[in-house]
Amino acid sequence: MWAIIGTWRMSYEAIQNVSKKLKNNEIGADEAAVLAIAEIEDFPYFKSVGYGGLPNEEMVVELDAAFMNGNDYSFGAVMAIKDYKNPIKVAYELSKQYTNCVLVGEGAEKFAHKNGFERKNMLSDRAIIHYKKRVKEMETELKPYIGHDTVGMCVLDNNQKIVSATSTSGLFMKKSGRVGDSAIIGSGFYADSEVGACTATGLGEDLMKGCISYEVVSLMRQGKTVQESCEIALNKLNDKLLEKAKKVGDLSIVAIDKNGNFGCATNIDNFSFVYASDKEEAKVYLVEKENNKTTFKLASQEWLDDYLKTRMAKLEL
Amino acid sequence: MWAIIGTWRMSYEAIQNVSKKLKNNEIGADEAAVLAIAEIEDFPYFKSVGYGGLPNEEMVVELDAAFMNGNDYSFGAVMAIKDYKNPIKVAYELSKQYTNCVLVGEGAEKFAHKNGFERKNMLSDRAIIHYKKRVKEMETELKPYIGHDTVGMCVLDNNQKIVSATSTSGLFMKKSGRVGDSAIIGSGFYADSEVGACTATGLGEDLMKGCISYEVVSLMRQGKTVQESCEIALNKLNDKLLEKAKKVGDLSIVAIDKNGNFGCATNIDNFSFVYASDKEEAKVYLVEKENNKTTFKLASQEWLDDYLKTRMAKLEL
Repeated sequence: MWAIIGTWRMSYEAIQNVSKKLKNNEIGADEAAVLAIAEIEDFPYFKSVGYGGLPNEEMVVELDAAFMNGNDYSFGAVMAIKDYKNPIKVAYELSKQYTNCVLVGEGAEKFAHKNGFERKNMLSDRAIIHYKKRVKEMETELKPYIGHDTVGMCVLDNNQKIVSATSTSGLFMKKSGRVGDSAIIGSGFYADSEVGACTATGLGEDLMKGCISYEVVSLMRQGKTVQESCEIALNKLNDKLLEKAKKVGDLSIVAIDKNGNFGCATNIDNFSFVYASDKEEAKVYLVEKENNKTTFKLASQEWLDDYLKTRMAKLEL
Repeated sequence: MWAIIGTWRMSYEAIQNVSKKLKNNEIGADEAAVLAIAEIEDFPYFKSVGYGGLPNEEMVVELDAAFMNGNDYSFGAVMAIKDYKNPIKVAYELSKQYTNCVLVGEGAEKFAHKNGFERKNMLSDRAIIHYKKRVKEMETELKPYIGHDTVGMCVLDNNQKIVSATSTSGLFMKKSGRVGDSAIIGSGFYADSEVGACTATGLGEDLMKGCISYEVVSLMRQGKTVQESCEIALNKLNDKLLEKAKKVGDLSIVAIDKNGNFGCATNIDNFSFVYASDKEEAKVYLVEKENNKTTFKLASQEWLDDYLKTRMAKLEL
C-alpha cells in the first residue's frame, strides 16, 4: 500500500513520475518526496517554487524547504536560502542530523556549499519580467502579493513510512529574510507514520497561527478521519482568525492517513491537488468550498490543457 | 488578576521588576514580556540570552526571539539576527505586521536597522573566553554543547490578555544559521488569551518534533489543568522520542492558564522557573522529576546566593 498527495496542479507530472517508482518499490517515501519536489523546483514555469520562483522586493529569490520523516520525527529545513538549485535536497540532508537541522540564510548556504549541493542563479528571465511589471504597477509602496503556491507533499510508502515535504519561494515581493509556514514544523508540514501527514499552502503568516499541519495530525490521532481532520482544523483556524483578527488569508491543506486515504480543505475557490495510490493513478482534483464544506471533483481535460498553456504563455514587459 | 512565569532562575530580577508594574496596571502583558526579556538580554552574565550569549562555531553570536499576542494570534519572530541589542524588541515590532512578521538573518537585520533598533556588538569578553576554552577542549571536531537556557515568558495581565515571548542565543557552538524552537511558533511559544500560554526551553531540535507549546495549549483547551497539560505533553514527547529516535534531549516547559495558574514539566534534574501573580510575589522554584511526575519546591536562600556567584565568577582562559 502506498499513496502520495501534493498541493496544486503543479504536482501532477512529478507525482506521475514518482508513482511508477513507488509502485515498483524502486524508491521509498523519502526519495519519492524529494524527487517529486526537486522536479517541481526545476520546472521554470512554476513561479512559486525553486527556479523561476518570484523574488523578494529586492529582486532576490529566497527559498524555503523542509522534509520530515514520520518514523522518528527527524526533520530538516532551510529558510531564505539563495541560489541553490534544489532547496528540498538540502533540507533532506539536514533531516539526517540530530542537531543543527534547521538552518537559515547564509548559514544554510554554507552548509549547502560544504556538502556539494548544486549552485544555480535562481532568478529566471520570466521572474525578472514579473518583478518589473509589479514594480511598475505599484507607483507607491511595494506590497507583497498574497500568493500561496507552495508545493507540499505527503507520501506513504509500501513500508508504512510516511513523510511530508515542502518547497516555496514564498510571498512575491516579500521582505528580505521573510519566512512563512513552509519550513516551519507543525505549520507547513508534519508527519507521523503511526497516524498520517499534512502539508499546507496559503498565507504562511496565518497558517502558522494555528500550527495547522500538527493540528490535522492530532485530530487524526484522536480518531477523526483524514477528511474530517482537514475540515475541522481549517474551519476552526479560518473562523478564529475572522473572529479575533477580523481577517484571514488563503488557507489550503492536504493530508493522508496511515492507510493512504486522503483529505483536503481550503477557504478559497481555486485550490487544486494531485493524488495517486496503489488503487488509482495520479489525478488532478479541483476543490470547491460551500458553507464550510469541502468538495472536490476531477479536473476536466479542458482545464488541464489550459493550465500549462497559461503558465507557459509568452511574457513581455 | 495577573500572572507571569519565566524559565530558569535568570528570570528572577526581571520578573520582580515588571511584577510591580503589572500590579499597578502601569503596563500590560505586551510590555511586561518585552521589558522583562530585554532586561535579561542586557544582563551580561547570562550566557544563553542576548549580550553575553555564547557564540556559534564561527564565534559569532546569532540570536533568536519571538513574541505572540494571545488576543488575535499575531506574532513576530527573528532568527539568527546578529548584533542588535534587544532581539525581543525587534520580534515585538514584527508582531504588529500582518505579513513579513518572521524575518531571518540579514533580512531581520535590515528591518531592525530601518526601524531604528539599537546596534551592539553582542560578543562579550566572557563569551570569547568561553569560546576559546571550548575550542581548546575539543581537539578533534567542534560539537555543539547541548545547552538549554532560553528565556521564555508567559504573561496574563489585568485585561485578560495573555502573551508569550522568548529570547536565546541558541546552542553553544551551533552551526552558522542554526535555529532551534525558540522562534518557532507552536514549539518555543504559543498563546491564546481564551486558554493560556506555554513556552519551552531545551534542545530545540527535539522540542520542535512535538510542537510542544501548541500541544500544551491544546490540552488546556480540551479541559486539562495547566499542570496536567504540561506533564502529559512533555512525557508524551519524551517517551515518543525515546521509542522512535532512541534518544531525547533536554525538554522543559512552563505555562499559565487564563486564570493565572501555572504549570511546569521537565525531563531534567536542574530546571528552575520564576512565577509571580496578584496572589504571590516573585519566587524561584526548583523542579524535580520522579517517575514521570513533576514536583517543585521553593529555592533555598543558599541556592539563590550561590547562583549569581557562580554566574559572575571570574573567568580566565
